[in-house]
Amino acid sequence: MKRVFNFSAGPSMLPLAVLERAASEMTDANGSGQSVMEMSHRSKDFKPIIENAEALTRELMGVPDDYAVLFLQGGASLQFSMVPINLAGTEPGSSPRKATYVDTGIWAKKAAEEAAKYAQVTVAASSKDKSYTYIPAAPAPGPGDAYYHITLNNTIVGTKWPSLPDTGAVPLVADISSCILSEPLDVSRFGLLYAGAQKNLGPAGVTVVIVRKDLIGKAPGWTPAMLDYEIQAKDGSMYNTPPCYGIYIIGLVLEWLKAQGGVTAMAQRNREKAALLYDYLDASDFYTAPVEKNSRSLMNVPFVQGNPDLEKQFVAEAAAEGLVNLAGHRLVGGMRASIYNAMPREGVEALIAFMDKFAKAHRS
Amino acid sequence: MKRVFNFSAGPSMLPLAVLERAASEMTDANGSGQSVMEMSHRSKDFKPIIENAEALTRELMGVPDDYAVLFLQGGASLQFSMVPINLAGTEPGSSPRKATYVDTGIWAKKAAEEAAKYAQVTVAASSKDKSYTYIPAAPAPGPGDAYYHITLNNTIVGTKWPSLPDTGAVPLVADISSCILSEPLDVSRFGLLYAGAQKNLGPAGVTVVIVRKDLIGKAPGWTPAMLDYEIQAKDGSMYNTPPCYGIYIIGLVLEWLKAQGGVTAMAQRNREKAALLYDYLDASDFYTAPVEKNSRSLMNVPFVQGNPDLEKQFVAEAAAEGLVNLAGHRLVGGMRASIYNAMPREGVEALIAFMDKFAKAHRS
Ligand SMILES: Cc1ncc(COP(=O)(O)O)c(C=O)c1O
Ligand SMILES: Cc1ncc(COP(=O)(O)O)c(C=O)c1O
Ligand SMILES: [Mg+2]
Ligand SMILES: [Mg+2]
Ligand SMILES: [Mg+2]
Ligand SMILES: [Mg+2]
Repeated sequence: MKRVFNFSAGPSMLPLAVLERAASEMTDANGSGQSVMEMSHRSKDFKPIIENAEALTRELMGVPDDYAVLFLQGGASLQFSMVPINLAGTEPGSSPRKATYVDTGIWAKKAAEEAAKYAQVTVAASSKDKSYTYIPAAPAPGPGDAYYHITLNNTIVGTKWPSLPDTGAVPLVADISSCILSEPLDVSRFGLLYAGAQKNLGPAGVTVVIVRKDLIGKAPGWTPAMLDYEIQAKDGSMYNTPPCYGIYIIGLVLEWLKAQGGVTAMAQRNREKAALLYDYLDASDFYTAPVEKNSRSLMNVPFVQGNPDLEKQFVAEAAAEGLVNLAGHRLVGGMRASIYNAMPREGVEALIAFMDKFAKAHRS
Repeated sequence: MKRVFNFSAGPSMLPLAVLERAASEMTDANGSGQSVMEMSHRSKDFKPIIENAEALTRELMGVPDDYAVLFLQGGASLQFSMVPINLAGTEPGSSPRKATYVDTGIWAKKAAEEAAKYAQVTVAASSKDKSYTYIPAAPAPGPGDAYYHITLNNTIVGTKWPSLPDTGAVPLVADISSCILSEPLDVSRFGLLYAGAQKNLGPAGVTVVIVRKDLIGKAPGWTPAMLDYEIQAKDGSMYNTPPCYGIYIIGLVLEWLKAQGGVTAMAQRNREKAALLYDYLDASDFYTAPVEKNSRSLMNVPFVQGNPDLEKQFVAEAAAEGLVNLAGHRLVGGMRASIYNAMPREGVEALIAFMDKFAKAHRS
């Protein structure tokens, strides 16, 4: 079969050039006589690979020197636990610390629920009243907050914070799983950033954590060693065997991103792709984009037609034409086109052409 | 460069046929028009891949139906925490539960130290008195033990339990990271087995956990969701995005293993490979195999020459001839040849030929 345009929310498309390079190096990477999958993580063969991934992350994201860059396992979901344990966790018997969360969707809610195991969580604002179709005004942090958590881009509902909340001296923590490297981001505004790799960075199985060094080293004694940022940072993400192959692919994706012109150029392309789609949706009387304009995501574009049977048919017919994974999340229904960095403009154009054809065939 | 023989303790060699197949499917797996790295884990494309990996694990290891097979993240090191939390963890305020550990080397010790955060650990026997060069007699479990933990194959020191301890009704838990699928193993003797994939199974980043179902569901309320076997088992290792590509490679490795004749045939080959090396070492007056004969590992064969400068030279000259990663673990020194399932007999023969040449050149 020829390559499809994959609109999955993640894992999702990777640049074809990256996949072709990975294939070509599969049995012998960098003249080592080994696959990267076979390399000892302590070997001279692997060392430049993880160093390259970290250096490119720092360069492309503009990570200041007083931040650690970690490549961990467990996905963003494990960060839902690691963030509160490390930043607000306490020893048994001592009173819990506080944290503020903003509820902008299912992932934000899950993060807050997990944090409530370890900290006194205040959900200070929510957009649940309108099915999460907007980003609420940012409340001030609570007194004594250990941190303030937001989900910068909400993958399921397709919203993005239009600007960052001002949290003063309280460290701002953001889940950037579905928007990392899609636009410039001022890392110095954050205490901690985390992202599962499987949308804009590489394969599932690696999580990138960028954390200000003064926030490291406060985990309580009962913290599982693997969940302690201090232990992970001290050994350069090599306390144990890291997910080496995923880290290698991240390096290749970042090299590709750099060759495309870096994050600024990528943001320009992403804005153009998203505008094509939103403009089409807003002009259409057949499809609707439910998210409020100033809260719209560049990466995840949900839309509805309104008739569930027709929506199902849309998803199936699109797949038959090589436009796959267009169903909305099972909890919200409708359709969703995730258009990450690796989705070429032609993919968006092909989608719009299909949408138009489908609308003409089914407009009553 | 031509392919090397990689004697690393892990990550280590994978079957060339597996790598070639992975390369050939890199941009289009199973006619999906996608790489396995790009597949949504909830898609019809990925479902048969994870099902195949689980079915082959069950078939080749003879896993009974009352055991769950999980593909997790975090390596064996995260199991050092998950085992005590899930099997012996308690709510704050209630008295800790007990567990017995046997100290047969660095990994066994690390597992016990981590468990001591969550349970009252008794290290009931140790072979530290002789630098871990033997497996001690198995002590009986303590009264009220929640479980009894052993490291079945000790990667660093090259020992293997010659027979399983009888723990009566106390669940036996084993770290089988460096011996999984190397020999037949009666899974029904165990309450829980775990292994990082990066030795006999696939790339780093996936951990296989095989757990008797009645042991699941006892984790205390403060357990991080990702570390709860119940949550992971309920969703078939898909509570969150699993390490999809690693699971796919495990499936390919297991298909290869089945085509080789399964575990029985592999064990026969492994015994022959190990015998070649141990026989040579025992006959040599230049090299010594320090491990007691009845405790020797089939997978990890440490040996010493005695002169650290000469040992360094050995490792460097061997590497130059394509026999790589022969240095012993940094904590024990000397040399170590890890000869996992994917190491062909020719690799062992080439190593012995090199050893012999080196011995002749340096025998004074
Ligand atoms: C914003 C966001 N956070 C968290 C997650 C969960 O990620 P993981 O599967 O890596 O745990 C997702 C997954 O899609 C997500 O989109
Ligand atoms: C027996 C054993 N247990 C545990 C580990 C640690 O494994 P991981 O790096 O997957 O955490 C190793 C690593 O070599 C090992 O050999
Ligand atoms: Mg959401
Ligand atoms: Mg419209
Ligand atoms: Mg050991
Ligand atoms: Mg000898």
